[in-house]
Amino acid sequence: MVKKPYAFGVDLGGTKIQILKVEEDGNVLEKVKIPTEVEKGADHVIAAIASSVEKLFDKQYPPEGIGLGVAGQVEKSTGAVLFAPNLKWSNVPLTAILKERLGFPVFATNDVRAATIGELSFGAGKNAKDLLSIFVGTGIGGAIVINGRIVSGPENTAGEIGHMIVDLNGPPCTCGSRGCLEAIAAGWGMEAKARNAVNNDPVSAKRLIALAGGDPMLIKGKIIQEAAREKDPLALSIIKEGEAALIAATASLINILNPTVVLFGGGIIDANPDMVRTVEEGARKKALKAASRHVEFRLSSLKNEAGAFGAAALVFGKG
Amino acid sequence: MVKKPYAFGVDLGGTKIQILKVEEDGNVLEKVKIPTEVEKGADHVIAAIASSVEKLFDKQYPPEGIGLGVAGQVEKSTGAVLFAPNLKWSNVPLTAILKERLGFPVFATNDVRAATIGELSFGAGKNAKDLLSIFVGTGIGGAIVINGRIVSGPENTAGEIGHMIVDLNGPPCTCGSRGCLEAIAAGWGMEAKARNAVNNDPVSAKRLIALAGGDPMLIKGKIIQEAAREKDPLALSIIKEGEAALIAATASLINILNPTVVLFGGGIIDANPDMVRTVEEGARKKALKAASRHVEFRLSSLKNEAGAFGAAALVFGKG
Repeated sequence: MVKKPYAFGVDLGGTKIQILKVEEDGNVLEKVKIPTEVEKGADHVIAAIASSVEKLFDKQYPPEGIGLGVAGQVEKSTGAVLFAPNLKWSNVPLTAILKERLGFPVFATNDVRAATIGELSFGAGKNAKDLLSIFVGTGIGGAIVINGRIVSGPENTAGEIGHMIVDLNGPPCTCGSRGCLEAIAAGWGMEAKARNAVNNDPVSAKRLIALAGGDPMLIKGKIIQEAAREKDPLALSIIKEGEAALIAATASLINILNPTVVLFGGGIIDANPDMVRTVEEGARKKALKAASRHVEFRLSSLKNEAGAFGAAALVFGKG
Repeated sequence: MVKKPYAFGVDLGGTKIQILKVEEDGNVLEKVKIPTEVEKGADHVIAAIASSVEKLFDKQYPPEGIGLGVAGQVEKSTGAVLFAPNLKWSNVPLTAILKERLGFPVFATNDVRAATIGELSFGAGKNAKDLLSIFVGTGIGGAIVINGRIVSGPENTAGEIGHMIVDLNGPPCTCGSRGCLEAIAAGWGMEAKARNAVNNDPVSAKRLIALAGGDPMLIKGKIIQEAAREKDPLALSIIKEGEAALIAATASLINILNPTVVLFGGGIIDANPDMVRTVEEGARKKALKAASRHVEFRLSSLKNEAGAFGAAALVFGKG
C-alpha cells in the first residue's frame, strides 16, 4: 500500500503545545498535546516539540514538513519569532533550529493566520476565496484572505484588525492610540472598563466586585459574562458596547475588503456563539448593501485545533 | 519607423470628459477635454466619447484599446455602469456600446480605481507593490493595491474606505450608518456639520453665514477653508475634526493592510496639500510601529489627469 503524504501541524501557545499529524486532505493520523513549560526557556520548548514529533513518525516515511502557528510575531523571510510575550521569547530562530534538528522543511506563521488557514483548508472557511477572520479573545486578531491567499504585507503585519479605531474619542488602548476595537470589545478591554467603573462608580460595580470575591483585579471576562446573565446593568452595558464596536469594525471591514465570508472564532466567541448572530444583524444594517449582499457570517468549526490544522496546511502550500 | 502601441484613456465625470492618447510608457500623444452634457442622456455622452476618439487616430494604426474611469459603480464582468449619480445613469452597457461602435477592446472601472492605477503606473505610486489610495473630495474613496494588483472583491466594491466607521456615535452618514469617515472628513460631511451649527448655534456660525452671502445652503468646503484661514473657531474645529477622522482611518488602514505607500489625492487634498503632512504625523503616532515603520505618505502627482492615465493603463493590463 502506498502511503499518503502527511505533515505535522503545531500550535505553539503560552500554556500548551498541540501537535497534529495530518494528511493533505485534513485526515488526522495522530494527536498529541504537551505543556509548553515557558519557564524552561526557548531551547527546552523547541526540543520538546522536536522530540514529540520524532516519536510520531517512522524514518522510512518522513513527513513533507512541519508547520507552526506561534502566538507571536514571526518574521516572514526567516521564520524567526521576533516577539512572543506569552512565550517570553524575542528573536528566537525557531524554524532554523527545528530544521537543523529534524532535517525536513519547517514553516511558521502567527497563530491567528494559522487558525485562519486551518479553517480555510479544512474548516468553516473551506473553499472561500475572499475571507476575513475575526478572533475575539483576550485580544482581537484577524487575517485577510484574498483570492485564496493570506495577505501578509511587506512587514508581515497585515490583519491587525484589533487596532482599527472605531471610536475616535474612546478608551485608551495598549498600543498608545484610543478607541481601538480591542480596547472596547476584547477581553482585556472589557475588563479594563469594569475596573474603571469600580474606581469611578463603585455602586454600579457592586455585583461585579462581589462575583470577583471582593478583588477588582479578579474581574475577568467570565465574571462579566456571569453578571450579564444575571442582568447586571454594568455588565450588560460593557458587553453591549463591545458588540457595538465589533459591529462597527465588521461593517467597516466588509466595506473595505468586500469578503464573501466573515469567520468568527476565539475564546469569547466560542463561549458565546450567539454573539455572531448579534454582530451579523448589526453589521448587515451598517455595511453598504452592494458590499454585504452576498457575504456569509460563519463560526469557526475547528475551534482550538484550527491553528494546528492550519500550521500543517502551510506545509502543503496553503495560506 | 515602427509605431509604438498606444491606448485611449477616458475620465468620464459629471461635468467633463478628459481623453488622453497615451503610449504604454505613459508618453502622452494627444489630449482632449469635452463637456459631459449629462442632460443629453447616456447615448449622447457615449457617442461624444466615440466621435472624439475616432478623430484622434488613423485607421491604419488603431489603438490597443480604450479604457474608461467612470464616476460610478461599474460591473466587473460586463463593464456596465450600474449606477452613476453624477451622470444620472443606471444600468448603462457602456463598454458594450463602445465596443460595438469602435471595434477595439474597451475596459472600464470606477474613477477612484482608475486614478489609483494611473498613479501606480505613471505617477506618485510608480513601482509600489502594496499601496493604499485615499481620495478626499466631496466624498471619500480609496483603492487597495496588493502585490501590484487592485483588490476588487467578488462584488467589485472593495476600497469603500469612505464608509469606515471611525466614530461609533458620530454624525449620521448618507449610507444609513453613523460616524463614517466621509460623514466627518469629506466635503459633504464638513458642510453638513457647518449647516448643523447654523441651526443649533447660529452665533458660532456667523462668519460662515456671512461668507456664504447669508444663505446657509451655500456654505461649501471652500467657504469653510476660507473661514479657517481667517481663524474662525467653528471652521477650524470642523477641519480639525475632519483631520482627526482621516488620521484615525489612515492609522487603521495601515494596521489592517500594512501598505508600503499611502497615496493622497482628491479636490480637498489638492487644495490643501499640507493636510497630508498633518495626517502623516498623526497616523504615524497612532499606527502600530511594526506596520508603519516603512510606510511612505505621498501626494498624487497626476492630479486631475490620474483617472485618464489609469484608464489607459487598464488597456495595457495594469491594475
